[in-house]
Amino acid sequence: MPSTLSLAEAHALVAGILAANGCGERQARVVAEAVVAAERDGATSHGFFRLPGYVADLANGWVDGRAEPVVEDAVPGLVRVDAANGYAQVALADGRDRFVAKARTQGIAALAIRNSHHFAALWTDVEPLAEAGLVAFAFGNGRSRVVPFGGGRRLFGTNPMAFACPRRNGPPMVWDQASSMMAHGEVMLAAMHGKPIPEGAGFDAAGRPTTAADAVLAGGALGPFGGYKGSAIALMVELMGGALTGGDLGFEDRSGAFLGAQSSSAGEYLLAIDPARSGGGAFLDRTEALFQRLIRDGARLPGDRRYVNRARALAEGIRIEPEQLDALKRLRASSG
Amino acid sequence: MPSTLSLAEAHALVAGILAANGCGERQARVVAEAVVAAERDGATSHGFFRLPGYVADLANGWVDGRAEPVVEDAVPGLVRVDAANGYAQVALADGRDRFVAKARTQGIAALAIRNSHHFAALWTDVEPLAEAGLVAFAFGNGRSRVVPFGGGRRLFGTNPMAFACPRRNGPPMVWDQASSMMAHGEVMLAAMHGKPIPEGAGFDAAGRPTTAADAVLAGGALGPFGGYKGSAIALMVELMGGALTGGDLGFEDRSGAFLGAQSSSAGEYLLAIDPARSGGGAFLDRTEALFQRLIRDGARLPGDRRYVNRARALAEGIRIEPEQLDALKRLRASSG
Repeated sequence: MPSTLSLAEAHALVAGILAANGCGERQARVVAEAVVAAERDGATSHGFFRLPGYVADLANGWVDGRAEPVVEDAVPGLVRVDAANGYAQVALADGRDRFVAKARTQGIAALAIRNSHHFAALWTDVEPLAEAGLVAFAFGNGRSRVVPFGGGRRLFGTNPMAFACPRRNGPPMVWDQASSMMAHGEVMLAAMHGKPIPEGAGFDAAGRPTTAADAVLAGGALGPFGGYKGSAIALMVELMGGALTGGDLGFEDRSGAFLGAQSSSAGEYLLAIDPARSGGGAFLDRTEALFQRLIRDGARLPGDRRYVNRARALAEGIRIEPEQLDALKRLRASSG
Repeated sequence: MPSTLSLAEAHALVAGILAANGCGERQARVVAEAVVAAERDGATSHGFFRLPGYVADLANGWVDGRAEPVVEDAVPGLVRVDAANGYAQVALADGRDRFVAKARTQGIAALAIRNSHHFAALWTDVEPLAEAGLVAFAFGNGRSRVVPFGGGRRLFGTNPMAFACPRRNGPPMVWDQASSMMAHGEVMLAAMHGKPIPEGAGFDAAGRPTTAADAVLAGGALGPFGGYKGSAIALMVELMGGALTGGDLGFEDRSGAFLGAQSSSAGEYLLAIDPARSGGGAFLDRTEALFQRLIRDGARLPGDRRYVNRARALAEGIRIEPEQLDALKRLRASSG
């Protein structure tokens, strides 16, 4: 019978695991927020499931859990942050106030994070910006896992892009999608459950198309979504997240020197736009009319399933199988 | 036997057609550049083929070919332009210098065009920005033609998005893609040639999937590329191009009052980012290394076919069938 954790209990558990394995207290609290948010919203491929990976990367020295980001107020529209080989969420937390203030005074601003690891879901970064009334983008690259359309070798990361738009009443419209047909975490889940992946989603180590998740994880690669158009988006995310931040490009990956490294040393580029400065006073009414039409015609608003899951977790807590809870408690104890 | 026009001859012919049908001389020259660029690059669905549509929209009063855009220096990072019911290219031409100057001093800037018609290819807008050394985005919405993923009625425009990145030696990397599986112009060409369109690309007037281009044009609709991910991008472009500019959203279409109206009254949102401010000095070298890997592995760099076509047109001129040339000359004479 599953146990139930309140959100506060889940956060304390996750932060405790991270802190027990090499994260600073502050850094652990920030990263735990993203992990618990994913679990809370039913995005399990970025939730508790990822904790062994976090612990492995802290243990093998690939990620510096105590890194203190260096924030640089570069030009009027740009904040740059060197994450110093720590987690991108900590860099974002340290740069966010200046970034948001710039977006309000300039109308638009960017936050460029480099030398960072992002092992969580990207929507957790843009949703708070939209809650603050801003339209927001995030582009995150990662180590090479995706074969460009028409190409023969992996070059791009799974390269998620996230977009968020405030709404007048209720939580923002937020989407977050990998440029690959499947997210790496989804392939990991499929492999764990022995399920096949769709045609076109994967390549084995020899570059042959495969529907076996195991074969993809064993030195294989992923395919982009939407053919050449998705591949063009993957290239854009690689340029924004990797090159425009001064972070690592996917093919510059240095993780091979760290046994079992899970995350990517890469970059994240965020944009925030104040709609009151450009869309006019009717922005929230007009966008709401668009959203309502979309819903009325039978389509889903991106992110709405997460909000349904969130409401349930807020009311009932997060359900967790006893085996998984025991495993998490062992992770917390692991380095004493 | 086909005739050949030099680029200058083609420009004079197109500008002459537009000016003879209600465009101001200056406006005609600006719009003709985009039409000739498309024809020159082999992007024929946005080339000469569109001129009868331009003429129809000028004749029926849907577009004001003499409109003088109103440029507003809104906030430090944003230029707003009211295109005054004229062409978006004229608005961009009038706002561009201020927009580029802001991108250089702020690190990032936006140009928001509203109350505009964009009947040409979007890449023609971002390519010159990348030639000036900037990373550039453009988002253009349009009247409802695309059914959201899972929805039952058309809501989004074909909603193209374009992206451009400078290169150290040679022309920029530029892509431009509709959020629909097919561009409206491609469906028009397929209908003209009696060719079927792919599964999933179209819906007939009753909302049933169809592969008949005619049925799509006769009150039907298009499908998004890449399933729910392409649909999310279409929604983003609708919000950026329509709502964030203060332009018309696709469903707010007023073209029904203008018999045979071809273009959309909509908006275009452009972003320009100075990579020297955020990517560091090695930006052009690092991105070139990425591009070279992509090419070496057998994939195409987006836009490269256009550059091949362009080189041929620059050397040999633009080939045109005598029937099409005669038709163009008649258009030039049409309103005397």
